[in-house]
Amino acid sequence: MTTENALIEPIVLGAERRKKPSPGARKTVRLGLLGCGTVGRGLLELIERNRALIEERAGISLEVTKILVRDLSKERPGVDRSLLTDRPEEIVAGSLRGATFVAPAPCDIVVELLGGIEPARSLVARAIADGKSVVTANKALLALAGAEIFRAAARSGVRIGFEASVCAGIPIIRALESGLVGNRVDTLCGILNGTSNFILTRMTELGESFEAALEEARRRGFAEADPSLDVDGHDAAQKLAILSELAFGVPIAPGSVKVEGIRQIEPEDVRAAKELGFVLKPIAFARDLGDALELRVEPTLLPIDHTLAHVRFEDNAVLVKGDAAGELIFRGKGAGSLPTASAVLSDIVDIARNGSAPLRYADAPPKPAAPDGHARFYIRFPVIDVPGVIGRIATALGSRGISISHASATLVPGKPGHGNVKVLAHDCRASVLAETIDAVSRLPVLTGKPVAIRILETS
Amino acid sequence: MTTENALIEPIVLGAERRKKPSPGARKTVRLGLLGCGTVGRGLLELIERNRALIEERAGISLEVTKILVRDLSKERPGVDRSLLTDRPEEIVAGSLRGATFVAPAPCDIVVELLGGIEPARSLVARAIADGKSVVTANKALLALAGAEIFRAAARSGVRIGFEASVCAGIPIIRALESGLVGNRVDTLCGILNGTSNFILTRMTELGESFEAALEEARRRGFAEADPSLDVDGHDAAQKLAILSELAFGVPIAPGSVKVEGIRQIEPEDVRAAKELGFVLKPIAFARDLGDALELRVEPTLLPIDHTLAHVRFEDNAVLVKGDAAGELIFRGKGAGSLPTASAVLSDIVDIARNGSAPLRYADAPPKPAAPDGHARFYIRFPVIDVPGVIGRIATALGSRGISISHASATLVPGKPGHGNVKVLAHDCRASVLAETIDAVSRLPVLTGKPVAIRILETS
Repeated sequence: MTTENALIEPIVLGAERRKKPSPGARKTVRLGLLGCGTVGRGLLELIERNRALIEERAGISLEVTKILVRDLSKERPGVDRSLLTDRPEEIVAGSLRGATFVAPAPCDIVVELLGGIEPARSLVARAIADGKSVVTANKALLALAGAEIFRAAARSGVRIGFEASVCAGIPIIRALESGLVGNRVDTLCGILNGTSNFILTRMTELGESFEAALEEARRRGFAEADPSLDVDGHDAAQKLAILSELAFGVPIAPGSVKVEGIRQIEPEDVRAAKELGFVLKPIAFARDLGDALELRVEPTLLPIDHTLAHVRFEDNAVLVKGDAAGELIFRGKGAGSLPTASAVLSDIVDIARNGSAPLRYADAPPKPAAPDGHARFYIRFPVIDVPGVIGRIATALGSRGISISHASATLVPGKPGHGNVKVLAHDCRASVLAETIDAVSRLPVLTGKPVAIRILETS
Repeated sequence: MTTENALIEPIVLGAERRKKPSPGARKTVRLGLLGCGTVGRGLLELIERNRALIEERAGISLEVTKILVRDLSKERPGVDRSLLTDRPEEIVAGSLRGATFVAPAPCDIVVELLGGIEPARSLVARAIADGKSVVTANKALLALAGAEIFRAAARSGVRIGFEASVCAGIPIIRALESGLVGNRVDTLCGILNGTSNFILTRMTELGESFEAALEEARRRGFAEADPSLDVDGHDAAQKLAILSELAFGVPIAPGSVKVEGIRQIEPEDVRAAKELGFVLKPIAFARDLGDALELRVEPTLLPIDHTLAHVRFEDNAVLVKGDAAGELIFRGKGAGSLPTASAVLSDIVDIARNGSAPLRYADAPPKPAAPDGHARFYIRFPVIDVPGVIGRIATALGSRGISISHASATLVPGKPGHGNVKVLAHDCRASVLAETIDAVSRLPVLTGKPVAIRILETS
């Protein structure tokens, strides 16, 4: 048996045996925090609250050695002031401010919670160059500079933990990296922006307008003062790019996700959706067609028995189809201080415990965007309420090869003479439909820009 | 910087750097399979199909060195016959058959897919003693002998991978061990048995009887010839025990889960549930009350907007409440050859890549069962159809302190003179209700055993 064991490659199991902590042994892991905003304070709170539990479960004792903040004078209740610094070089080596050398506080993992691109990008690069693993919740940074960061990390032999960058506390990065490691994933589909889902849910269930629902989201602290990252789909697109790189193993260039927001949606549309047996959801969709990728974020109609149709209000969910595991759905809170801190903490513990190199991240050459697929569409045409208006629109669509299975007209309350014609178009290409709508919208009966919404049929 | 790095504990980050594989480097991981049934063949198929993908993503090349089977002569299409053996000692050292010494084939990880208790238990113990990590899909074994297996593994410094033992391809073990590592979990609730969910879904959506739905499950290969493990709740109870040990960190003795199956459910019950705004689901529920545990598997009524209410047919789902991450839901196929193989493979890759010791498994002292909590209940009393029967039952309940919010009577089609009285009881203790039902069932108008079903109110 001894001879046999000696034959085992040390990297596989020998290392495991060497590294086994003796019962009760604790390893201290020192953290340097960049940023002390909502997530930073959530992390500090969570580390304090569950310290004993983490030590007991994982044999790890966490110690925060320094916290970088912009403004030292700001009140931060519950945060040990002696840990605060406004000098990045006290956490990562080198200096952003010139030649002065400052020895950084000892730390094993750098936790980047600054958000935004700079100085996060430079500080993360510096931490990697220092040989420190980095945990980040910064999806904008990863979407923009992920490839560069992961390459640098591979060169330095350090890990980048980014579970918190997508869907906060939902362990979707782990699921793709580890749970589904033996699967070929071809489709990934999700509700990745809680604010948009909250707004569309309020519009659907309470009949609110987009503006009223957005205001409510603001009141509850979901939406930023400038909500465009959320409601225009860019936040979801960044998350979709990160998830798709993992799922499909190819780099996704920023901007390769087709994005459409939800501002143009009227209560009229969610009502019509319901009557037709659909629910309107902010869907991020990615599919690997082998030689090309479909990547889009747009409001989408789901059949009411679709798995994602029941994901309401600010909840997020991701559906992944693996060739072995089948269809998996992960659902939960996609934002918030503690859910995000939960994900950051899971990465910290994982990096502290596991010595392996990360999976190879998006190593293959990029794939081109797929040509538009076929789908059914719901289309609303704002019109002047004149006799024969349905006929004129249906004829215009038909003459351009778009068949419809349903058409109805309604009046706009409080706007005499104004109405909407709503149609369900048969399977057609989005690009063909767009051209056709463009042509139809030049009809004199039209009063505004038509709204077309894709229907996602499969679960 | 060099000085600084030298101060970092080698276990945390130094090891990581040492272990970084050079680009393109591949590590061969040799697998000894115990068993070549449905899951074993699924695993072999998956390894072949996604070999390149696994090598590329994880830098690991998988090699099956031996496969233990009971019957060497059986046809196994696609399986390399030269790998088969009927002698366990060719995979794990020592001999089950006496003193003959056989040098086992070299392997790094033993994959136990035999199912059942023996010889799985002995062979796993032997593999652990050999210093080999073990991956198993055997929930019955873990439910019975988990504590002993995990203790032995800790002593030998090897890992036990058991993702496949609960809910097949849903990475719920990973979620609890890693994604939620920083969370205190207080509630875990799920649909853990696909056959029972399939049967109740057919009864609900198609009005089938229990027997007809079970027959259909058999026809589709979900249910065994003897379906009692599934429909009597024991399979779900084993899974709940494994998940609860991880979630709450305490050992769960077999038999400490209160179990009730679904055989007594009539189409009548699912119909009434629907009319009252509920859906009947086979629910496994665990809650940590601090000084005691609530653990039960039973058919349960969920409000129709409950997250688990939409989990249909053979799908499984687990809802976990973490104090930081909030409510997370994991959903997917809970059985089947490839989904289970997907989980087995994820454990193999994880053990091959990560050198860390497992989380401490159920180290704390066990907790007693919690006293019965309060709940609302639906109760059906099979009765003789006589005037005043609702009154007599309602009075009997009321006189024993059980208030009701709804009562209705229906006739049993095709059984003249027989009916059912269905009531909704207000919040009461299950134990008090059970005594009361016992008393009421001695009323002369009763024709059979009443059926009481708990209502789970919260999401």
